[in-house]
Amino acid sequence: MRIVMVGAAGDIGQAALNELQQRHEIVTVGRSSGDYRTDVADFAAVGDMYRKVGQFDAVVSCAGDATFAPLKELTPENFMLGLRQKVMGQINLVLAGLDTIADGGSFTLTSGVLDRDPIRMGSNAATANGALAGFVKSAAIEMLRGLRINVVSPGLLEVSEPRYGKWFPGHKPVSSIDVGRAFAKSVEGALTGQVLVVE
Amino acid sequence: MRIVMVGAAGDIGQAALNELQQRHEIVTVGRSSGDYRTDVADFAAVGDMYRKVGQFDAVVSCAGDATFAPLKELTPENFMLGLRQKVMGQINLVLAGLDTIADGGSFTLTSGVLDRDPIRMGSNAATANGALAGFVKSAAIEMLRGLRINVVSPGLLEVSEPRYGKWFPGHKPVSSIDVGRAFAKSVEGALTGQVLVVE
Repeated sequence: MRIVMVGAAGDIGQAALNELQQRHEIVTVGRSSGDYRTDVADFAAVGDMYRKVGQFDAVVSCAGDATFAPLKELTPENFMLGLRQKVMGQINLVLAGLDTIADGGSFTLTSGVLDRDPIRMGSNAATANGALAGFVKSAAIEMLRGLRINVVSPGLLEVSEPRYGKWFPGHKPVSSIDVGRAFAKSVEGALTGQVLVVE
Repeated sequence: MRIVMVGAAGDIGQAALNELQQRHEIVTVGRSSGDYRTDVADFAAVGDMYRKVGQFDAVVSCAGDATFAPLKELTPENFMLGLRQKVMGQINLVLAGLDTIADGGSFTLTSGVLDRDPIRMGSNAATANGALAGFVKSAAIEMLRGLRINVVSPGLLEVSEPRYGKWFPGHKPVSSIDVGRAFAKSVEGALTGQVLVVE
């Protein structure tokens, strides 16, 4: 397959990339690195990116920022960051690619553990994660041409633990190999409308 | 208790109102009706509303529009409606009220069935519902002063069926009395961080 991978530079993106590049052609897309550049929050820019990429069979999104801040410090401005980037940004990749992705193609988004196992300062990310779960479950039933959509929801990655572990007390980190497997299951398998939990 | 109820004019709001007004003082807030007026998507306006209301023990939100449209007709513009109104709007009611709600107070938001039992044209609402579930689960662990937060997730109401039933094939409608009970459970009970499903 020819797979458009957005956000390949991050820890989750690297896990997906290392698994999928063994068997597929990967086109990387990033905000500041990759074969093509785009800002997922900019719908027109996402459409331009797809036109430049040409034919593709799958989209893997590991993109999307959220705000990490105590509940009391959340404001409409910093809260909307997660809604615009992690939610709308990833959904833009779906909406803008619906007509041009190959028959039988798939969209795989990324959420995370925080809506099922919350931490302090994680309310914005938890909101975004829950939103993506709701979206894929519903969008899946309206997809035509054999298209599929899932979201991978990994726990904190082992490789991310040195930087972020102190904010995730007691969370058992997950291996990048297992995270990669979840992306393979979504892209190469037949599931749709699922939250693929990695824990 | 003195309860600020936003969106009391709708079918879900009426169900909550009929239950809670039996035992509590209700201050109604709406976009175009009620004791006070506000647009929940406008954070400053929500803060003004709380200042005018004065002391309050609980907030019940039955507010928040979403876009109903086929997946292929969703755009960043109409999709953001649900994120701004149903998600950010209800979260604004929490963030703006955190400091002034009485000790031991509660916030009760409203989502709906579509993230667990999707329908055509429901992806925006499903996204909003999932977002609210993630938010309450996470926000609950950071609440101080005994504050609590839950979201009520009702199926299609019997009273709404004549207008909306054709879009919900096979959905079993729920009674307004049972919906009212869920709000009572959230406001008067001790649960927090929960999605209170009514089905």
